Amino acid sequence: MAKMIRKNYLLAPGPTPVPIDLLLEGAKDTIHHRTPQYLEIQKIALDGAKYIFRTENPVFILSSSGTGAMEAAVANTLTPGDKAIVVVAGKFGERWMEICKAYGIEPIVVDLEWGDYVKPETIKELLEKNPDTKAVFTTLSETSTGTVHPVKEIAEVVKDTNAIIVVDAISGMLAQPLEMDNWNLDIVVTGVQKGFMMPPGIALISVSEKAWKVIEENKNHHYYFDLKAYKKKYPDSPYTPPVNLVYQLAKSVQMIEDESIENVWERHKIMADATRAAVQAMGLELFAKRPGNVLTSIKVPDGVDGGKILKYLRDEEGVTFAGGQAHLKGKIIRIAHLGYMSKYDVIVGISALEMALKKFGFNVDLGSGVKAAQEVFMKEGV
Amino acid sequence: MAKMIRKNYLLAPGPTPVPIDLLLEGAKDTIHHRTPQYLEIQKIALDGAKYIFRTENPVFILSSSGTGAMEAAVANTLTPGDKAIVVVAGKFGERWMEICKAYGIEPIVVDLEWGDYVKPETIKELLEKNPDTKAVFTTLSETSTGTVHPVKEIAEVVKDTNAIIVVDAISGMLAQPLEMDNWNLDIVVTGVQKGFMMPPGIALISVSEKAWKVIEENKNHHYYFDLKAYKKKYPDSPYTPPVNLVYQLAKSVQMIEDESIENVWERHKIMADATRAAVQAMGLELFAKRPGNVLTSIKVPDGVDGGKILKYLRDEEGVTFAGGQAHLKGKIIRIAHLGYMSKYDVIVGISALEMALKKFGFNVDLGSGVKAAQEVFMKEGV
Repeated sequence: MAKMIRKNYLLAPGPTPVPIDLLLEGAKDTIHHRTPQYLEIQKIALDGAKYIFRTENPVFILSSSGTGAMEAAVANTLTPGDKAIVVVAGKFGERWMEICKAYGIEPIVVDLEWGDYVKPETIKELLEKNPDTKAVFTTLSETSTGTVHPVKEIAEVVKDTNAIIVVDAISGMLAQPLEMDNWNLDIVVTGVQKGFMMPPGIALISVSEKAWKVIEENKNHHYYFDLKAYKKKYPDSPYTPPVNLVYQLAKSVQMIEDESIENVWERHKIMADATRAAVQAMGLELFAKRPGNVLTSIKVPDGVDGGKILKYLRDEEGVTFAGGQAHLKGKIIRIAHLGYMSKYDVIVGISALEMALKKFGFNVDLGSGVKAAQEVFMKEGV
Repeated sequence: MAKMIRKNYLLAPGPTPVPIDLLLEGAKDTIHHRTPQYLEIQKIALDGAKYIFRTENPVFILSSSGTGAMEAAVANTLTPGDKAIVVVAGKFGERWMEICKAYGIEPIVVDLEWGDYVKPETIKELLEKNPDTKAVFTTLSETSTGTVHPVKEIAEVVKDTNAIIVVDAISGMLAQPLEMDNWNLDIVVTGVQKGFMMPPGIALISVSEKAWKVIEENKNHHYYFDLKAYKKKYPDSPYTPPVNLVYQLAKSVQMIEDESIENVWERHKIMADATRAAVQAMGLELFAKRPGNVLTSIKVPDGVDGGKILKYLRDEEGVTFAGGQAHLKGKIIRIAHLGYMSKYDVIVGISALEMALKKFGFNVDLGSGVKAAQEVFMKEGV
């Protein structure tokens, strides 16, 4: 049996494919970070990040994964004994809860079935019952399920209370509309290995005036993620920044500005529509109750081993999807349409899934999913 | 209308996609070419080239395009007044003729319809009529049409005559079986921007004992392509070699040896089978009379503007096919399945062609070509 060329098709919700122009930025000569030459580049990155966050607030660069920025959001705002509401409808809602607990806070948990989304009224009621709530922690796109929470509407509920709203937009930013200032979001965190099309290594965080008041009164113990240090040094860095990644970030934000964020949102929506149409045409069922533009999660059909199929696709076909996490392991497949992906990445992913499902015993019409995706693209005129 | 991400899908018969590991070889520090360190690398490239040519003869590296090696083959073997047979069934057969003429030789031309192939009997008859023929020039894969000439059988006819057989294997090598020594080929030329998966810039040429006798008696005027100079210096180079391209060639031949040439041939055959099945399932007609594994040429259906469709695919979709050359301009589309291409490159190309044909008014069932390609891959178990 011949062995075919195996290319790398990274269709997971982060890291996502990196354009070669961004990879080459990372290969440029490393300069010293305490120089005007470096600061000029960092300023481009910071200004671009503000454009993408839709904010006039500074955005800070953290040399960490997205989780570091989540920790910063908790550590800077909550002190043991403080009240916080945490929305948990998947692994990344859980992460807010875990970080709160690590910092000695027992949050009020909105515990939803994975795949479900929080209704703004739920938050409204909880805030009314707990007027001394310091912060509401939620997630734009819950990466473990593909569900998008109605962040804009939740923020409307939080706005006129004493609480701040903190949003994990790690996978959601750029794939999903988010407007920090217009929506009155108080803290927004993200990572660059998603819609920014970058290799991992940088997290970004921005803080509203309302949140700064909370932060300034905070007494919790922390150091590396102390946002006051970042604010003081801004637009410079308190500690050594990841220089070559910042080159890449400066390039990334320029690419996104050139394209316009509205176009970035729109193309993610078309990719998501095409993928959803494709998997449904194949006879598969969507898992998320409010699916977004980051990824499409599908239920693994009965009789098919979800783990085996993903391993086969990754190891034999070079097509990397994500599986289910925790109790969803083996039960869902997550197909990302996030970041630097073309229409043909959807077609590659769908055609690979068709062949793999057929190989593993699920009766699928080859080409049926591809056809449905093609029809969406043609209808959209793209 | 949203603008989607446009990636580069290079599905033309050269240059072909370059694996990132090969690109990175080209980015290594340029060393001096008159050093043992460099020569060690060049030897790896030369030994690997012998493996790929299937020969015990030295293979020479020319810093030129494939046409340079074709010129070397003519300039070193023919003198004005010499008799040569040239097979012309497309643009690259014509190139042999043009080079002959440039060197003052009026060849005997086997003038075939483009898309057709030469029968060994035709060569046999011509050689019997012209026993003083010095050389027979032919083409393994005629890139302009996708037709493969029966080189092995032609060589059997030439073998016991005084003539040598010269083969342009520029696009054919690695996609199409070729065995220089076993088939008694006298001069074989190729370029690296095809099956070798490299950027353009190197041509390779190898010469049999029988051909050396012809070369040593040759009186034609030439300098840069004088093969005696290359032979004298071998495995070193008479002139400055393209150092970084030679790094890439050394890596390329190692990748091919690791894979085995038999597997390279076999995977090209499967890619070709899948592409042919796909375009026929779409209701398109093959152009080549003896289609090979380098590319699939299809007739542009009536009422479709072949030029427009290719321009649209290249400029809007990032999918680069080749069109027809000379009188076939606008009349055929050439889809390469050559070099560093995966099954999903076939699927991308076919799905792009389906959408483009539909957009330009040809009634094609979306997904029908993809399905046919998928079926071939599944049947082959790859």
